[in-house]
Amino acid sequence: MSIRLQKESTVITRVVAFDMRYSLPPGAGSDAVHTDPEYSLAVTHLRTGNGMSATGFALTLGPGNRLVCDAIEILAKPLLGREIEELMAEFGEVSRQISNDSAMRWLGPHKGVVHLALASITNACFDLWAKTRGVPLWKLLLDLQPEELVALLDLSYLEDALSVGDAIDLIRSQWSSRAERLPILEKGYPGYDTSVGWMAYEDEKVRELTRRAMDKGFSAFKLKVGSSDRNRDLRRAQMLRECAGDSATIMFDANQQWDLPTAMQMCRSLARLCPLWFEEPTHPDDLAAHIELASVIAPVKIAAGEHIPNRVLFKNFLRAGAMHFVQADATRLAGISEFLTVSLLARKSELPVVPHVGDMGQVHQHLVLFNRIGLGHEVQFLEYIPHLRSHFVYPADVEGGVYKTPQEPGVSSDLLNLPASHV
Amino acid sequence: MSIRLQKESTVITRVVAFDMRYSLPPGAGSDAVHTDPEYSLAVTHLRTGNGMSATGFALTLGPGNRLVCDAIEILAKPLLGREIEELMAEFGEVSRQISNDSAMRWLGPHKGVVHLALASITNACFDLWAKTRGVPLWKLLLDLQPEELVALLDLSYLEDALSVGDAIDLIRSQWSSRAERLPILEKGYPGYDTSVGWMAYEDEKVRELTRRAMDKGFSAFKLKVGSSDRNRDLRRAQMLRECAGDSATIMFDANQQWDLPTAMQMCRSLARLCPLWFEEPTHPDDLAAHIELASVIAPVKIAAGEHIPNRVLFKNFLRAGAMHFVQADATRLAGISEFLTVSLLARKSELPVVPHVGDMGQVHQHLVLFNRIGLGHEVQFLEYIPHLRSHFVYPADVEGGVYKTPQEPGVSSDLLNLPASHV
Repeated sequence: MSIRLQKESTVITRVVAFDMRYSLPPGAGSDAVHTDPEYSLAVTHLRTGNGMSATGFALTLGPGNRLVCDAIEILAKPLLGREIEELMAEFGEVSRQISNDSAMRWLGPHKGVVHLALASITNACFDLWAKTRGVPLWKLLLDLQPEELVALLDLSYLEDALSVGDAIDLIRSQWSSRAERLPILEKGYPGYDTSVGWMAYEDEKVRELTRRAMDKGFSAFKLKVGSSDRNRDLRRAQMLRECAGDSATIMFDANQQWDLPTAMQMCRSLARLCPLWFEEPTHPDDLAAHIELASVIAPVKIAAGEHIPNRVLFKNFLRAGAMHFVQADATRLAGISEFLTVSLLARKSELPVVPHVGDMGQVHQHLVLFNRIGLGHEVQFLEYIPHLRSHFVYPADVEGGVYKTPQEPGVSSDLLNLPASHV
Repeated sequence: MSIRLQKESTVITRVVAFDMRYSLPPGAGSDAVHTDPEYSLAVTHLRTGNGMSATGFALTLGPGNRLVCDAIEILAKPLLGREIEELMAEFGEVSRQISNDSAMRWLGPHKGVVHLALASITNACFDLWAKTRGVPLWKLLLDLQPEELVALLDLSYLEDALSVGDAIDLIRSQWSSRAERLPILEKGYPGYDTSVGWMAYEDEKVRELTRRAMDKGFSAFKLKVGSSDRNRDLRRAQMLRECAGDSATIMFDANQQWDLPTAMQMCRSLARLCPLWFEEPTHPDDLAAHIELASVIAPVKIAAGEHIPNRVLFKNFLRAGAMHFVQADATRLAGISEFLTVSLLARKSELPVVPHVGDMGQVHQHLVLFNRIGLGHEVQFLEYIPHLRSHFVYPADVEGGVYKTPQEPGVSSDLLNLPASHV
């Protein structure tokens, strides 16, 4: 009886969307195509009968955030009245149904505003689930049996690449070696700093921020390229290499700005600086361009995924060898659930997942730990962007260039200062 | 002075979005994934200083229509104060700028709600332009010089497939033979009937509607497949072939419902009925699945495009031989402009464009005439869906199974009963 009562109390009784906007310091967040971003979170906020609350969100860059919030209000209705454990026991099917809503699917399918809304909804469900169990997300995921984990996933349209059986087998194959990988929880997960090299920053500011980041323990840095002035790109790239030193890891990010001929030319010019990767070198839908570029710029590699919206397109990119670093993002894909699906696909292709952090690393700090321990992915590093730190209840704890393992129950998405009358 | 005055009077002075919903007869519009659609138009309505008005729209299927309207209100702002001839003289650049709006681009890019909004905006601009010149769209396009036509297009990210020079050359190469293709204006453009075979229709209704359509002069029919009961698909398909006769053209449309293994199996089973094509056999993002399917089901062909959102993905599908009939839709792509771009790409690949008619054929009846006469595309047929006829000021005139050439100025999008206080 007490169990039954407890279950009834974790029924979702309210779903509200919040349109949260955060202004950034001058120049922060700028890149070749997003020149003056206002980081905005389309928040799904859940309440339960026993007064628990949970938060999920997707990132957008300003006025469109309202559209995602409106889509959340429409798509989240099936959550009302659902008990969280029962919901999550079949979340793959829930995700499939929401993403194939007969009326809303036309707006995607599985991409754009409706898919961003599903990301936010999904992440809120995982937050509530982890809080209900009193554990951080990484532990929640590690505690699941393979069958339970795969029941969280919508593997439709992957029948030719990752069946339910394949997914269970893959997780099971990594089970006995988990213990060897547990020390990462103590050491923490390495970070790399994106915030030194925003497009609008003057050279001196990039140098100063890079030096400061090195002092803090970072040894990997990303620079925005794709400027209309190609010489500026070349100068800044050279400067970053000199400032960071030959032993540092540097990456260049064009944010989709280049057409293929320009990408070919610029990647060739910048390759002598030995970057680890070129990120989003051209249009994210252009599979053929990525394949061609990959063959031309080898051994330099391609990172992509920030704007690849779903598992079907990732399947195509992975299969074609069109990317080398899989920048899945749980705030672009259909949340934590589809992030895990793409992580399984990537593991099968033996490619590393290095998330793009539309969540500022809050959720992904959990997910890379699960990917490492649970799926046997190699340790890479996790992007670090500090600009929204002050707005989280539990901002990621990054020390010595390393993400410390989060211990609070949930997915670390809770925000300060949500509109009080509704929360 | 009078010319100047005239120009000032065709300045866009107001842009309003209307969320128009239309209920359908029971079962109409239903398919494997859209079970109970409410045809909804996200309308862009323009007014000029001299009191002209123009209409463009994108189709959606119900509650999400409001989201597209909200996106229109945000994205259409750059049109205010623009004179229509000056705007259209550089519309390719205008389209590029709107689709790359620094804040809104994140919600796509170039897909989903924001791209549907751009479709609606673009189509309204073309309507205003054609009305200003007092000609129907097909004539407006045929009257343009190759350079003027290409200035309407955003060819970015196509540098490796269709440069500005390529596009101009292609149009010019068809110039001297235009006269041979003009008779289509008198004969009219053949139609095919989609409305006989909606998923929810009982067998007897499909038979009855097919017979009636044959009596009206149609000889090509489409049937919805992808039912959860595969035997129902097989039975209905057999029935349509028997009812329409061996000389009729029939097509099967799965509306993305099948995974690849199912598509393989069903296409093999249905191939004996000699359909012209299988339409949307699986997920519209799954390039690899389309390629594999195309190789397996030959000589039966694949039609796709209804949910392919932009020129970049079309470029990939065309180049890979992943489709045989190019179902571009000017209410899914970025309007008439990107439809023309995809038509040029398809012409270069020597593949026919057979539009999906999210506009119920109103705009596409003009575009297939331009494709035939201006670009030298072969005559195919144009989809016919009659359910919204009574809501248009000038509904497409289909007689004897043939679209009669529209003569009214504009793009044939004007709607009856827009909210009076705003129009």
